[in-house]
Amino acid sequence: MSDIASVRIVRATERDVPLILQMIRDLAEYERMSDQVVATENGLREVLFGARPQAEVLLAYAGDRPAGFALFFHNFSTFVGRRGLYLEDLFVRPEFRGLGIGRRLLTELARTAVDRNCGRFEWSVLDWNEPAIGFYRKLGAEMMKEWRIFRLTGDALKQLAS
Amino acid sequence: MSDIASVRIVRATERDVPLILQMIRDLAEYERMSDQVVATENGLREVLFGARPQAEVLLAYAGDRPAGFALFFHNFSTFVGRRGLYLEDLFVRPEFRGLGIGRRLLTELARTAVDRNCGRFEWSVLDWNEPAIGFYRKLGAEMMKEWRIFRLTGDALKQLAS
Repeated sequence: MSDIASVRIVRATERDVPLILQMIRDLAEYERMSDQVVATENGLREVLFGARPQAEVLLAYAGDRPAGFALFFHNFSTFVGRRGLYLEDLFVRPEFRGLGIGRRLLTELARTAVDRNCGRFEWSVLDWNEPAIGFYRKLGAEMMKEWRIFRLTGDALKQLAS
Repeated sequence: MSDIASVRIVRATERDVPLILQMIRDLAEYERMSDQVVATENGLREVLFGARPQAEVLLAYAGDRPAGFALFFHNFSTFVGRRGLYLEDLFVRPEFRGLGIGRRLLTELARTAVDRNCGRFEWSVLDWNEPAIGFYRKLGAEMMKEWRIFRLTGDALKQLAS
């Protein structure tokens, strides 16, 4: 078992792309959505480290072992009138849970949000993921109970566009 | 009453900023969130038309009268591995409802999403807004029933960051 004292949070670089893709797949399996993962190494390289990056990644290491990651981007709040930080994915590999790694990643993201003058730091959670919900509430985050996400994709998206 | 045939959808320009702010306030009133609007004209000018735009706006006109707006930006789906289009706000002024203006705005956004090779077109809705939910479903959009948004803001955000 790793020692919490040895946990490091670092910004991902281009050579971490295979590791990031592997952890995205691990996360999808945990969320019962493996069939939805169509990301590739080349695609991730372009969107994370290409000419116009769309998102950023933090990696957590326990000693020299990759233990988790956070992928985030900036959204925008109309009412607040400035950008926010949106955490798209947070994942800690099962064998590294209980070491405070998720909290370390969230702390680093909160610091990034404050440093960049973001009005909000937001993310989504599956409503059956009770351990995550309890964890987020303890950090002071508020669940926006009334909001639901709608999604158009695939053929339905193309049909509306045409 | 305006004629649906005279509805035009145009991209907002910098001189539309006062109009956009007024419609953001109208929307906030409808959503019972007027106390949360802290956006200003200068702030909007910077984030929409500054050196590094954070979001884009479409305006709907019925004849020469501004009837509604859509504000959107790009998010990123890890699983899909490419960016999506996220609609932050859609609003049609009450006196212009029932003319198909909301649908025209959504159609233009769907076209934008397809043109820009976005994997998804998403937005959020308040769960008590039954007319909107029924409208979105008729367009082929799917409600992501299991997802809830968490938010850290203000003092709680600063505290986690420190």
